[in-house]
Amino acid sequence: MKIHHVGIAVESLSAALPAFEKLLGRPPDSQEIVADQKVRVAVFNLGESRIELLEATDADSPVAHFIAKRGQGIHHLTLAVPKVKERLRELEAAGIRLIDRQPRSGAGGERIAFVHPASTAGVLIELVEEK
Amino acid sequence: MKIHHVGIAVESLSAALPAFEKLLGRPPDSQEIVADQKVRVAVFNLGESRIELLEATDADSPVAHFIAKRGQGIHHLTLAVPKVKERLRELEAAGIRLIDRQPRSGAGGERIAFVHPASTAGVLIELVEEK
Repeated sequence: MKIHHVGIAVESLSAALPAFEKLLGRPPDSQEIVADQKVRVAVFNLGESRIELLEATDADSPVAHFIAKRGQGIHHLTLAVPKVKERLRELEAAGIRLIDRQPRSGAGGERIAFVHPASTAGVLIELVEEK
Repeated sequence: MKIHHVGIAVESLSAALPAFEKLLGRPPDSQEIVADQKVRVAVFNLGESRIELLEATDADSPVAHFIAKRGQGIHHLTLAVPKVKERLRELEAAGIRLIDRQPRSGAGGERIAFVHPASTAGVLIELVEEK
């Protein structure tokens, strides 16, 4: 297992990027739009992990809702696990509240699932099974 | 550079640990008290990074203040950088707001410094120079 990425909700990529570029010493390694989540994403690769800055492309995006409620900040923590489906089954059996009881398809076609923050000290945790 | 750790503010380690143990598949690798920050910390090593669960040992702890204001959740993101002092100088020159303008001594004696969340989309970022 490893930290796959930390997702940070930002109001504006163009406003947030300069500080992160200074902090990380370079421009983002890639930018993409994830239509499913209604976000524009700037990705900084960082060792075996990534930092992803997330800007909503629509007022109905989960990231826009998050910012409206809590302000900018870390939105989710994603862990790479060997088998998402098996881990979900184990977590459910242990009484952990899940958002996704079955894996679904992520931006790059990986199998992903979200665990409900009510069970994990308020942290929205995403599991991803890397291809 | 790499993600050194993600620090999660929890109301109670004994309440939060079972879910994280299920999620990460094992008990924490270590637990310690960091007197300076008035926290009890449970550490899960995860690849080249760590997840740290932080429980306040005192109502005056920064973690207790954070929870009172925002609830449980991710408190800070720590990045390992080669030279904290030089990075602080660069950040300050670029107009990034700092909490610590000079490195100070962290729990294990490493040089650490905090960047103010006002400059980094609401994320409290700690820099650490690993020994």
